[in-house]
Amino acid sequence: MTRRILLVNGPNLNLLGSREPEVYGGDTLEDVVALAERTAAGLGFELRAVQSNHEGVLIDAIHDARTGTDAEAEAEAIVINPGAFTHTSIALRDALSGVALPVAEVHLSNVHAREEFRHRSYISPVAAFVIAGAGIQGYEFAVRRLAAILG
Amino acid sequence: MTRRILLVNGPNLNLLGSREPEVYGGDTLEDVVALAERTAAGLGFELRAVQSNHEGVLIDAIHDARTGTDAEAEAEAIVINPGAFTHTSIALRDALSGVALPVAEVHLSNVHAREEFRHRSYISPVAAFVIAGAGIQGYEFAVRRLAAILG
Amino acid sequence: MTRRILLVNGPNLNLLGSREPEVYGGDTLEDVVALAERTAAGLGFELRAVQSNHEGVLIDAIHDARTGTDAEAEAEAIVINPGAFTHTSIALRDALSGVALPVAEVHLSNVHAREEFRHRSYISPVAAFVIAGAGIQGYEFAVRRLAAILG
Amino acid sequence: MTRRILLVNGPNLNLLGSREPEVYGGDTLEDVVALAERTAAGLGFELRAVQSNHEGVLIDAIHDARTGTDAEAEAEAIVINPGAFTHTSIALRDALSGVALPVAEVHLSNVHAREEFRHRSYISPVAAFVIAGAGIQGYEFAVRRLAAILG
Amino acid sequence: MTRRILLVNGPNLNLLGSREPEVYGGDTLEDVVALAERTAAGLGFELRAVQSNHEGVLIDAIHDARTGTDAEAEAEAIVINPGAFTHTSIALRDALSGVALPVAEVHLSNVHAREEFRHRSYISPVAAFVIAGAGIQGYEFAVRRLAAILG
Amino acid sequence: MTRRILLVNGPNLNLLGSREPEVYGGDTLEDVVALAERTAAGLGFELRAVQSNHEGVLIDAIHDARTGTDAEAEAEAIVINPGAFTHTSIALRDALSGVALPVAEVHLSNVHAREEFRHRSYISPVAAFVIAGAGIQGYEFAVRRLAAILG
Amino acid sequence: MTRRILLVNGPNLNLLGSREPEVYGGDTLEDVVALAERTAAGLGFELRAVQSNHEGVLIDAIHDARTGTDAEAEAEAIVINPGAFTHTSIALRDALSGVALPVAEVHLSNVHAREEFRHRSYISPVAAFVIAGAGIQGYEFAVRRLAAILG
Amino acid sequence: MTRRILLVNGPNLNLLGSREPEVYGGDTLEDVVALAERTAAGLGFELRAVQSNHEGVLIDAIHDARTGTDAEAEAEAIVINPGAFTHTSIALRDALSGVALPVAEVHLSNVHAREEFRHRSYISPVAAFVIAGAGIQGYEFAVRRLAAILG
Amino acid sequence: MTRRILLVNGPNLNLLGSREPEVYGGDTLEDVVALAERTAAGLGFELRAVQSNHEGVLIDAIHDARTGTDAEAEAEAIVINPGAFTHTSIALRDALSGVALPVAEVHLSNVHAREEFRHRSYISPVAAFVIAGAGIQGYEFAVRRLAAILG
Amino acid sequence: MTRRILLVNGPNLNLLGSREPEVYGGDTLEDVVALAERTAAGLGFELRAVQSNHEGVLIDAIHDARTGTDAEAEAEAIVINPGAFTHTSIALRDALSGVALPVAEVHLSNVHAREEFRHRSYISPVAAFVIAGAGIQGYEFAVRRLAAILG
Amino acid sequence: MTRRILLVNGPNLNLLGSREPEVYGGDTLEDVVALAERTAAGLGFELRAVQSNHEGVLIDAIHDARTGTDAEAEAEAIVINPGAFTHTSIALRDALSGVALPVAEVHLSNVHAREEFRHRSYISPVAAFVIAGAGIQGYEFAVRRLAAILG
Amino acid sequence: MTRRILLVNGPNLNLLGSREPEVYGGDTLEDVVALAERTAAGLGFELRAVQSNHEGVLIDAIHDARTGTDAEAEAEAIVINPGAFTHTSIALRDALSGVALPVAEVHLSNVHAREEFRHRSYISPVAAFVIAGAGIQGYEFAVRRLAAILG
Repeated sequence: MTRRILLVNGPNLNLLGSREPEVYGGDTLEDVVALAERTAAGLGFELRAVQSNHEGVLIDAIHDARTGTDAEAEAEAIVINPGAFTHTSIALRDALSGVALPVAEVHLSNVHAREEFRHRSYISPVAAFVIAGAGIQGYEFAVRRLAAILG
Repeated sequence: MTRRILLVNGPNLNLLGSREPEVYGGDTLEDVVALAERTAAGLGFELRAVQSNHEGVLIDAIHDARTGTDAEAEAEAIVINPGAFTHTSIALRDALSGVALPVAEVHLSNVHAREEFRHRSYISPVAAFVIAGAGIQGYEFAVRRLAAILG
Repeated sequence: MTRRILLVNGPNLNLLGSREPEVYGGDTLEDVVALAERTAAGLGFELRAVQSNHEGVLIDAIHDARTGTDAEAEAEAIVINPGAFTHTSIALRDALSGVALPVAEVHLSNVHAREEFRHRSYISPVAAFVIAGAGIQGYEFAVRRLAAILG
Repeated sequence: MTRRILLVNGPNLNLLGSREPEVYGGDTLEDVVALAERTAAGLGFELRAVQSNHEGVLIDAIHDARTGTDAEAEAEAIVINPGAFTHTSIALRDALSGVALPVAEVHLSNVHAREEFRHRSYISPVAAFVIAGAGIQGYEFAVRRLAAILG
Repeated sequence: MTRRILLVNGPNLNLLGSREPEVYGGDTLEDVVALAERTAAGLGFELRAVQSNHEGVLIDAIHDARTGTDAEAEAEAIVINPGAFTHTSIALRDALSGVALPVAEVHLSNVHAREEFRHRSYISPVAAFVIAGAGIQGYEFAVRRLAAILG
Repeated sequence: MTRRILLVNGPNLNLLGSREPEVYGGDTLEDVVALAERTAAGLGFELRAVQSNHEGVLIDAIHDARTGTDAEAEAEAIVINPGAFTHTSIALRDALSGVALPVAEVHLSNVHAREEFRHRSYISPVAAFVIAGAGIQGYEFAVRRLAAILG
Repeated sequence: MTRRILLVNGPNLNLLGSREPEVYGGDTLEDVVALAERTAAGLGFELRAVQSNHEGVLIDAIHDARTGTDAEAEAEAIVINPGAFTHTSIALRDALSGVALPVAEVHLSNVHAREEFRHRSYISPVAAFVIAGAGIQGYEFAVRRLAAILG
Repeated sequence: MTRRILLVNGPNLNLLGSREPEVYGGDTLEDVVALAERTAAGLGFELRAVQSNHEGVLIDAIHDARTGTDAEAEAEAIVINPGAFTHTSIALRDALSGVALPVAEVHLSNVHAREEFRHRSYISPVAAFVIAGAGIQGYEFAVRRLAAILG
Repeated sequence: MTRRILLVNGPNLNLLGSREPEVYGGDTLEDVVALAERTAAGLGFELRAVQSNHEGVLIDAIHDARTGTDAEAEAEAIVINPGAFTHTSIALRDALSGVALPVAEVHLSNVHAREEFRHRSYISPVAAFVIAGAGIQGYEFAVRRLAAILG
Repeated sequence: MTRRILLVNGPNLNLLGSREPEVYGGDTLEDVVALAERTAAGLGFELRAVQSNHEGVLIDAIHDARTGTDAEAEAEAIVINPGAFTHTSIALRDALSGVALPVAEVHLSNVHAREEFRHRSYISPVAAFVIAGAGIQGYEFAVRRLAAILG
Repeated sequence: MTRRILLVNGPNLNLLGSREPEVYGGDTLEDVVALAERTAAGLGFELRAVQSNHEGVLIDAIHDARTGTDAEAEAEAIVINPGAFTHTSIALRDALSGVALPVAEVHLSNVHAREEFRHRSYISPVAAFVIAGAGIQGYEFAVRRLAAILG
Repeated sequence: MTRRILLVNGPNLNLLGSREPEVYGGDTLEDVVALAERTAAGLGFELRAVQSNHEGVLIDAIHDARTGTDAEAEAEAIVINPGAFTHTSIALRDALSGVALPVAEVHLSNVHAREEFRHRSYISPVAAFVIAGAGIQGYEFAVRRLAAILG
């Protein structure tokens, strides 16, 4: 049976590479997904990637990882870069704790070194671990650690 | 003419029954809707039920209750369990005060006994009344009370 | 054996009906008690009603529901409208958690839509559920829900 | 080549004119768009108008103004009335700073004179200027000022 | 018919004169009552004085001024020195706003110059006026002003 | 030798009587001064009255009461209605504590029942007593109490 | 009869053009006044301009617009750039609400994007509308909008 | 002459032993009083014990220790476990500082390790010392220390 | 086998007796240690005493009580007066919870009656009990209680 | 050409020496100015001294140091003791940053050891350095340091 | 020339493996160091490891990485798990920003999901990236990322 | 007998001159000490200089200035630049108030113009005066002022 990890990228991450490279680096969303897929494949996992600027789409995707209505969407763990929803979306947090899968929270930039309002994360308390500021390599680490947790 | 009550369920309530039953109980969303429908029917009202993880869909549904573009969507009162949006969505609050219908705010769990950030409700100040922690029976009470208010 | 529910009404609720009807409605305390008694009776419970402006009297009444010194005062559950003590009395909270009975917190008005200082409740975290703003019908709902909990 | 300004109207602004006219005035969304279009045309600009109650739709529209995937959607500046999202959406803010276009923040009512929670704007720090309380005339001023900035 | 003013003194004011004279002065509670009575008499009013360390007793006394159950307790206005209850008793505030009589809040010492926690008054917003730090003369002024208000 | 009390009225009090009478009453500044003068005269004191919208003028006047450069300006006590400076002027406070005379702080309206920012007084901690909301009669009481303090 | 608008510029605005042009632009106070005068004239209004670094002078000027002591100073509306007094002067606010004329609050820079202490405005709640960051064009818009309000 | 120590136990302490033993231990109020009496007797003091759920009764008892109206109630020092009043009763604090006797504040549980709202004590600043979490042995220590202080 | 209690005294306690006796009393550190030793000996325990102004030295000493590298340093319980580290050292707290021994927190003065910043204790939540203000006798009580806990 | 340093003393500093010497010392304003002049002269600078209780006068004086309208008022640096305006005047701060000269902030007393509201300085962030509590010698140091900065 | 990475472990990390394994896992400090060394070696770096419970020792070690006094201590980057000093030590932060080397902040547990006071990090704003909750694998990731940054 | 001043420099000040010269200037610690020594010598005082990154070492040095155990360490006053400990070390503050010598607090940079967390000083309230931002000249001023105080 296919083992799968869900990769969720939140709002504005589709702009990656073309905008504000001094903050988010020069890699594109495609680079991020490709790196995560390669890492997952090397560890025996398939990667399913979702990006949306719509909070509801992200919540639906998280639900699909567990509710069994779509076998292709089932996953054992979630890597999520919630973007700005990190700081504002309790609904996303509830979705993650609702499906009860191990969660890796990833941020490209070091959010702790930015504006005050980016220091509060609704996601961190329901995540297994958090990686912030390690660039796209953070996604690789997240996949590796989740694989280690899943065994 | 059909008299109608709109029942709005917010994010993650589609997971009801299958996830975290120790917090939200073992009933499903279908049970909730069925109970509300039965109660409404007994009091001479039809019930229209909407659930979505998309804030925009919920706002649209609330607007439809009043704007007259769709006769089937018109309603005289609203029962809403805003889920996590309770604590973050001023847009939902503005939608409710915009349509100026009597609103019942319902929560399955006693949100006042949970995390600090669940104690603030943007919805309560524009609701007629609030019921929290009475399980799915809370929906029955909400329909009953709205019917009494509507006369 | 008689099954009993204790109804506790806190400070200023003796003024009900004669004062500030635009906030609290036109019903009197007698109406409240009569409605609660009728509801309880229909569900096989006797109702014991206490009202006082003295915090100590309310605490004593709550203790009496459980300590067994007076068989007539024993009760299986408590409906309480703590009035202004909701926001200031940790002693009342400790009394309720001390007797370890299911507690329904009821408010006639929607306290969440009033002054900031009425938004904090010391009672809610030790209550099973909270109903605010449903008028005297809130008492009926509270008795119904407690009966359902007690089975 | 057509020079274009994007006009974004956020949640509940579709209700304009029919609801709460004492707060928002009697003009409709159509009046707002017509006024903005007329003003823009007089200054040599085309106006593209988007209104949605969905945060994701607004973010997508903002992205489209810059990403070049749809020539019809390209714009040189943005007039935005973010409605309630003003106070809660960091994602919208990030979208605006991501596309790096001059932004005019407009509010029909004087938000500074309303509830405390309407005093914080996540949008203002990334806007070029803010106009609040000038009614639909605020949109005219916004278009004029943006045209002056663009030269 | 006798016109009457109710004088309410709260907790610890029975100690007046014998304890902490450097804060509260050397006059006794009897002196306070005598001065108020004299002032009232000179203006055609009878004075009814109550002092208690029991919040419930004070609330009952305030209710009695208006509920008509005891003609001797009826009053047209209230002078109250709520002592420490000033800062903690919402119940007392609700009692005062419940009876809807003009209220004078009096403090012997200048509470604004003391500990931080003595700066918040739950009573002031429902009082007609406040006199703090004028010693027992503050009672005389309070009676005079109430008489002027009552006409 | 003439005994004198200085009466200081702060910003906007020159508008008294003609503006916002529902908040400040219908009496004019002339009425206030006349009442204070009459009261002072009856107690053997002359009254010197100053009103200004300029903080510096008020500070200078307070200094003059004590520094001995102008015998006509010397005073033994100060009645001050600092108006809006109550909440913002540490300089005024320092002037009052600098001259070390007994100070009566008077407000026409009950500032404690108005906006939050009117609840903080920089003046109260250096005042002997505070009277708020007693209308122009508050000035009479202030003069009486100061006369009693001065003996 | 001459219709008149009062233009009030607060502290440090006399430095305009010569200091910190990166924040406030290169126009001088004379440019601001000339633009406002031209705009007003085009709409049938005379403009009276006052600038001062003295809070008291500004308050006096506002009073003069309404008290009728000087016919030349009478005005029907006020455009005010309160400068730093925006954030500190309750006296200025009280002066504006005291004269009860429509008020336009204008800032050259976008104060919402600057230091935290510039985010609080005592003036906004008593203003009809607020324009911040539109440079000297903001004065033109303010005059236009006031003219529209006055009819 | 009999030397006496007053032992005051506040609200809900009458439940001791029978309720929440995991928090408060298995000893009863009788055990507490007996231990305190034994300790006092061994040091040459009589112990007078009062327990009440009524704040007013506690205040009266404290007053009686000093006012000399009842010789049997006179005491030289006070051991008090204020229960929940610790965190809410300024009146109790004022009573204690009013009688000016050395005070020992005792808590059975370590209140500093419990809910945030149990961390503030109005009593501690007027107590000579505080013992929290030492179980009923805390009462023994309190009596010993007071005896040492009294000499 | 020797049973042992570790006594840890934090920064500045070496000054005891010679400095600020009005706050900390006239006893020296030697007196404190001697009293604690005598008390421990009477209960069958040896006492090991450490004092340092170096946080690291205190942490090492706490570790030594449990890690078994030095038999002479092993202990069954810890009495600690953390001095100023009480309010600032999370590292000390973690050391104490790391070794998982029963901890008595002792303060010579009543810290609750001193500066605001001395009211927060990082140690109390991991302590079994807290004694503050009982002078050096507090150490005796601490040893006694720990002995009772250890049995 | 004469090199000049401007010395600005704020409100109440004219009282120096005669009032509250225990806080501000026994020297007079004349002593302060003389010391500063002597120090400046020794370093080749002329000193221009201004003192006022009027914020506007101080702002005007600061402007004059740079705007070139009065050659006698031109200065290369500013020593300012803003008195109470330190904590309340953003206008003064803006004046100082507007003229862009090196600024020395001086306080006679150690403001950091006084009331909480004296701990916030609007001036410090635009000053080159701050000296507080060094008495009038602080002025000497300020002149010396500015001279060193100016070279 | 040897390229080197400095690994700094803060207070209580010497207890690793033997204490609270449910929070920090079962690995020992030796395991952590060995893993980091292996990872560094594979990337061409030597690892120098320091652990101390003394803040000063940690600061000295950080300084040694850059000051050139000891060639063996020179390093190009720093991996630091500051333990409890994360939340309290500005001195450590200043040391890190003082040496201006790339810093990886690592925590074994997910600090964001623990007590409130563990949510503030003084270190994060001067770190290149942060990894929290990934167990000892976090150290491996940190070394890998630093190697990638150093190139 | 030798008169002596103790100069204490806190954490990271050993890096002076080589690191972050844009913040702290280009002088080294040796320059600082030499300047202070020269100044002291000129005033008849010997200077004893201590620098450490260990809080405990600093506390010990402060104690040595007064406790008389080492005649070479005795001092009459203390100049301290506590570096980052300024904002976090209550222990250092207690050491300084414990030895009861006049204390000068010196900072090279203007801490009031830096991060928010550098605005709070635990040291200032126990210092005689504070000099911040005057560079190494601040040390000279501090020695001069202390000499003046000591006479």
